[in-house]
Amino acid sequence: MKFLIFEIKYKDARGRVGTLKTPHGKIKTPTLMPVIHPGKQTLPVGDYGAELVVTNAYLIYKNDHLREKALEGGVHNLIDFSGPLITDSGSFQLSLYGDVHVSNQEIVEFQEEIGADIGTSLDIPTPPFVKRERAEKELEITIQRAKESLEVRDKLMLNSVVQGSTYPDLRSRCADILGGMDFQVHPIGAVVPLLESYSYREVVEVVMASVKCLPDSRPRHLMGAGHPMVFALAVAMGCDLFDSAAYILFAEDDRLLMPNGTYKLNNLQEMPCYCEVCSSHTPNELQAMDKKERSRLLAQHNLAVSFGEMRTIRQAIIDGSLWELVEQRCRSHPYLLDALRMLKNYQKDLEKYDPPYKKSAFFYSGPESLNRPEVYRHLKRLQQVPKKRKVLLLPPSDKPYSQNIPEISGKFYGMKKGNFENIINKKLQEPSKINLQLHAIKDLQIVVVDVPFAIIPLELDQVYPLAQNESPATYDEDAKKRVREVLQNYIHDFEETVASENVLKSFDLELSDLNLEKEFQITEPVMLEVEDLNRIVCIADYQFGNGSGRALFNGNIKVVKSRKTGKIRHVYVDEGDVERLIVTLRASDGVFVLASEGARRLHHYLPYPKNRVVVNQEAEPFARKGKSIFAKFVINCDIDIRATEEVLIVNENDQLLAFGKSMLNGWEITDFKTGQAVKTRKGGF
Amino acid sequence: MKFLIFEIKYKDARGRVGTLKTPHGKIKTPTLMPVIHPGKQTLPVGDYGAELVVTNAYLIYKNDHLREKALEGGVHNLIDFSGPLITDSGSFQLSLYGDVHVSNQEIVEFQEEIGADIGTSLDIPTPPFVKRERAEKELEITIQRAKESLEVRDKLMLNSVVQGSTYPDLRSRCADILGGMDFQVHPIGAVVPLLESYSYREVVEVVMASVKCLPDSRPRHLMGAGHPMVFALAVAMGCDLFDSAAYILFAEDDRLLMPNGTYKLNNLQEMPCYCEVCSSHTPNELQAMDKKERSRLLAQHNLAVSFGEMRTIRQAIIDGSLWELVEQRCRSHPYLLDALRMLKNYQKDLEKYDPPYKKSAFFYSGPESLNRPEVYRHLKRLQQVPKKRKVLLLPPSDKPYSQNIPEISGKFYGMKKGNFENIINKKLQEPSKINLQLHAIKDLQIVVVDVPFAIIPLELDQVYPLAQNESPATYDEDAKKRVREVLQNYIHDFEETVASENVLKSFDLELSDLNLEKEFQITEPVMLEVEDLNRIVCIADYQFGNGSGRALFNGNIKVVKSRKTGKIRHVYVDEGDVERLIVTLRASDGVFVLASEGARRLHHYLPYPKNRVVVNQEAEPFARKGKSIFAKFVINCDIDIRATEEVLIVNENDQLLAFGKSMLNGWEITDFKTGQAVKTRKGGF
Repeated sequence: MKFLIFEIKYKDARGRVGTLKTPHGKIKTPTLMPVIHPGKQTLPVGDYGAELVVTNAYLIYKNDHLREKALEGGVHNLIDFSGPLITDSGSFQLSLYGDVHVSNQEIVEFQEEIGADIGTSLDIPTPPFVKRERAEKELEITIQRAKESLEVRDKLMLNSVVQGSTYPDLRSRCADILGGMDFQVHPIGAVVPLLESYSYREVVEVVMASVKCLPDSRPRHLMGAGHPMVFALAVAMGCDLFDSAAYILFAEDDRLLMPNGTYKLNNLQEMPCYCEVCSSHTPNELQAMDKKERSRLLAQHNLAVSFGEMRTIRQAIIDGSLWELVEQRCRSHPYLLDALRMLKNYQKDLEKYDPPYKKSAFFYSGPESLNRPEVYRHLKRLQQVPKKRKVLLLPPSDKPYSQNIPEISGKFYGMKKGNFENIINKKLQEPSKINLQLHAIKDLQIVVVDVPFAIIPLELDQVYPLAQNESPATYDEDAKKRVREVLQNYIHDFEETVASENVLKSFDLELSDLNLEKEFQITEPVMLEVEDLNRIVCIADYQFGNGSGRALFNGNIKVVKSRKTGKIRHVYVDEGDVERLIVTLRASDGVFVLASEGARRLHHYLPYPKNRVVVNQEAEPFARKGKSIFAKFVINCDIDIRATEEVLIVNENDQLLAFGKSMLNGWEITDFKTGQAVKTRKGGF
Repeated sequence: MKFLIFEIKYKDARGRVGTLKTPHGKIKTPTLMPVIHPGKQTLPVGDYGAELVVTNAYLIYKNDHLREKALEGGVHNLIDFSGPLITDSGSFQLSLYGDVHVSNQEIVEFQEEIGADIGTSLDIPTPPFVKRERAEKELEITIQRAKESLEVRDKLMLNSVVQGSTYPDLRSRCADILGGMDFQVHPIGAVVPLLESYSYREVVEVVMASVKCLPDSRPRHLMGAGHPMVFALAVAMGCDLFDSAAYILFAEDDRLLMPNGTYKLNNLQEMPCYCEVCSSHTPNELQAMDKKERSRLLAQHNLAVSFGEMRTIRQAIIDGSLWELVEQRCRSHPYLLDALRMLKNYQKDLEKYDPPYKKSAFFYSGPESLNRPEVYRHLKRLQQVPKKRKVLLLPPSDKPYSQNIPEISGKFYGMKKGNFENIINKKLQEPSKINLQLHAIKDLQIVVVDVPFAIIPLELDQVYPLAQNESPATYDEDAKKRVREVLQNYIHDFEETVASENVLKSFDLELSDLNLEKEFQITEPVMLEVEDLNRIVCIADYQFGNGSGRALFNGNIKVVKSRKTGKIRHVYVDEGDVERLIVTLRASDGVFVLASEGARRLHHYLPYPKNRVVVNQEAEPFARKGKSIFAKFVINCDIDIRATEEVLIVNENDQLLAFGKSMLNGWEITDFKTGQAVKTRKGGF
């Protein structure tokens, strides 16, 4: 590996905020790269926020004057831009005119000679929906030329474009092959016809098929995507770079780009935007200007909006609210909404990349929110929590539930053979049991049924995102259906089900859906409270896997609560002479942060390589000192680690060195050779 | 009526783009009125887009220095703003401190003396959720003081605030009483606590209860609403004015207002916006500034965003895309989405105000789109189309359907006693019927089943918005459920139902849902085409009411089509010596525009006052000359007229004078005394 140019700083969904290092400087991603025509650069795009630009090496090559100038003074001087610069190879011209007058080798060498930061081989941009035979044939040429470009280049960093038309398997195959070679950036090519025809469904298929096979450690460039409508969705699927001449082409056609669509200046009576240009001009004023001045101002608007959208996206990744932004943006056209709905098919993949713990609450914006990774992950992790014999289903309240449902009473439904009500009534008759607490009933799992997570065991009601989410009080049909399906599946494993009347009402459930047959009343309020030990064991199982709770909280356990909130803060083991801190429950998201004793116990319990990041000998002393772990020192890791999780740092012999929080997921830790992999909390082992 | 200050220029949903005339100038609505503190005005809000401002007369009154200055030089000089200016009365202070040291009479007189354009009486801002008794008692005082203010004022225009806490009936009652008196603007008061607690559901209830009882001819002011998150929804419910000190209060607290929420500067690493301030500063730069300078820039951001949002809303009304904007904006918080879902309860009212014919296509953005006025209206108007004996249900295709489903074949389901397949097969066996056309089957209604309009008779497949809409290809459960319900209801009136297999598949229908029992194949393609006469009769019935088609297209009818598109353009009656144009089918939205003969026929057929706008004697000659009709000349009209409809202009004796397009709905035409009511197409009768 000659070039180590990309690092991830923040993650959300499949999106990344990263930095890209080039010979002409370091830039932030995701970003838009304005396309500069080498012959007629007029706009100071740098002043409008461009950090990185694209220009066309082929147009320079075939024009004697430009070629000479570029060879003499370099391409940066030619287009008057001193920052990082990517050159394209003429593939676009190939797609337009069917032919170009340069060989792959010539154009790659030329890009190196004129000093591009990143060059591109002459790939074949196979259009969408062509016959498979053609797509396959052209793909072979693309791959062949990619290989050739590696032999030709010296210090030039190289793009290698993923092609394969609208065949997901060809896209994946291409991504896989190119990803195995020493390229620095991977454009995803020939999507412009899809974008222009609003075929966003196919864009999702093409992008997802590509990114899942591309190395995580290289930036991906959605080629020719320059409309801010698609930025958020594309970033959420893992795209880092966008290029387009749209800002100037649309401006010259009197059109304004907006994150929710395009406006034609001639149709406007008001400037529907708050950028500088739109805040200080009326449509009439702009229309009265001469075309050149108007185009300049509209291009300024288009760039301001595009870069503003990129900043909004980067901030959303930092905040952990990228899904919220994507779900808002995808309402701007029904076909974008359709594309968003397509992501349902990629839940498993998206869940791997989406960090489990975020700063932002989960906001439900419609049926599509049911298919977010958080919901998928919850239902998967729920299986790690051991099942009891009986289950009691309660309707939602304000969150966290256990603080807002202090007691229950009223109408319930039970199974024919169930004896829940007998137990309750018997207990209520005992004089000492005026304040009967439900957890006194042996082997009873209390569960709140709610949108969007369906099943929330009361023990987990403060864990992210089960407490940190908001939904409309009026449910849509998809939400109700999803809850019904999950619930019917969930109760299968219990011997006895009891449901509050309101659970059935809220989700349009029939008694028979839950095998319920009889009705009864709980006449006196029964207290609802979760026992501390139950709670911490359940959270640990949910967070670290089945059995982790018993392993962590073994011995004489002491739970310390916050005086202010009454919530659990620390869990110790009392070993007579000494109290050891096992874990701290993080107040912001209700999950455990390991302490040394917790790390030791977890390491003892979880089989290798579960939750491990294995570092090489060189890094071992640094890890022991509590220094953070850089990806290049990692020699193995649990591939199922997600970013933001508690992980164990070990050496090759599985000796525990330290523990910390993963910054990347298992696949990324394995793939990256740059940047931080684990933020170490503590070493000292 | 002393003051005629408000006119409507464009309408969409319940929103209006209007102009408001004041002694200090004319401004556009909807708009935001920044609140200026009379003692410490620092920002040049006019430079940032403010056309109209609010200041507090009570604060001036109780400060000797300010009072003297205002009495001497006028309030405009005092706060250094030369445009229109509204003064508040101290109610806000009353709500804060429980008491004010001024009487209603004194403060109204004072506002007149200092030269406010619009003043306010001292209403009692009853908070949300108080006991009904208190709300009623305080309401009486508010109404009493409103009455008193009318007696006190001379030339001062007056606000009169709708109160009534969270009791919709009290809000309606208050609106009704105040609306009957000579006020110029109606604030809707005491909603700030609801907005602050994100209780948007209650905001919808309060606003809808108020606006439905307020005169359409006066602007409504949602008091204290200053966050751009709620502007679009509030405008769609009929609010015209917004005021708030939020721009400066949030700025001083380092918070940025955005149409999709609020950002805290301290949490930002990127400026998530494209306004001038955010495009030219980083969060670090802003944080490093001194507080005053930072507040000024953040206030500039807040105002730029707020005014940009207002322009966006006004343009959306002009385009007929306000619902699309509202549905996007309401995704920014689940409680806003919940409020949007609440609008389902107000479909009937909203439909009256929403123009049936718009420039923009209907974009489906989620289950909430099913409750838009367009869908409600379609299902109502569908009842105007006479039913046939048999119905054939076809699955959706690209639009317009009749051009994209040239023929049908494949698997179908029919009723036990049905004989559709026998007729088809018999007809197919006749040698002359190789190109069997379905309309040759007597009494058969062909219908396409699709989201969101459920039932589209093939004759109507080019009528707005049945052709001009887009939905995701993947249906949500609400859409499927709605289609099932409408369909089951619709087929009730038919003797025989036949359904293509794909209709059942697409909408999860069981055979029994449609009383279908047998399966059959149509083995040879059967042509699908709509006969011209059927089409025009059906469109007319749908547009003007049952029977209108036969009445309009009676005699020797000649249909002229566009050579280019093949679509119907003109319909004539051939009277031997002369051909008279009855209607033109407008290409953009597929509905009829009347010609003189059409107007005459419709006038003859439809009973008074249906589709009529009745003008007084004074206006009669102008109407006959084809001049447009101003609202002040209208003495009666069909209350069921919607804006953008074809209407007949008659005199008191129901003599037809002219015809044209309504600019307002029946209620508005009746209520307004300013502005255009009908854009006359032609007089000459």
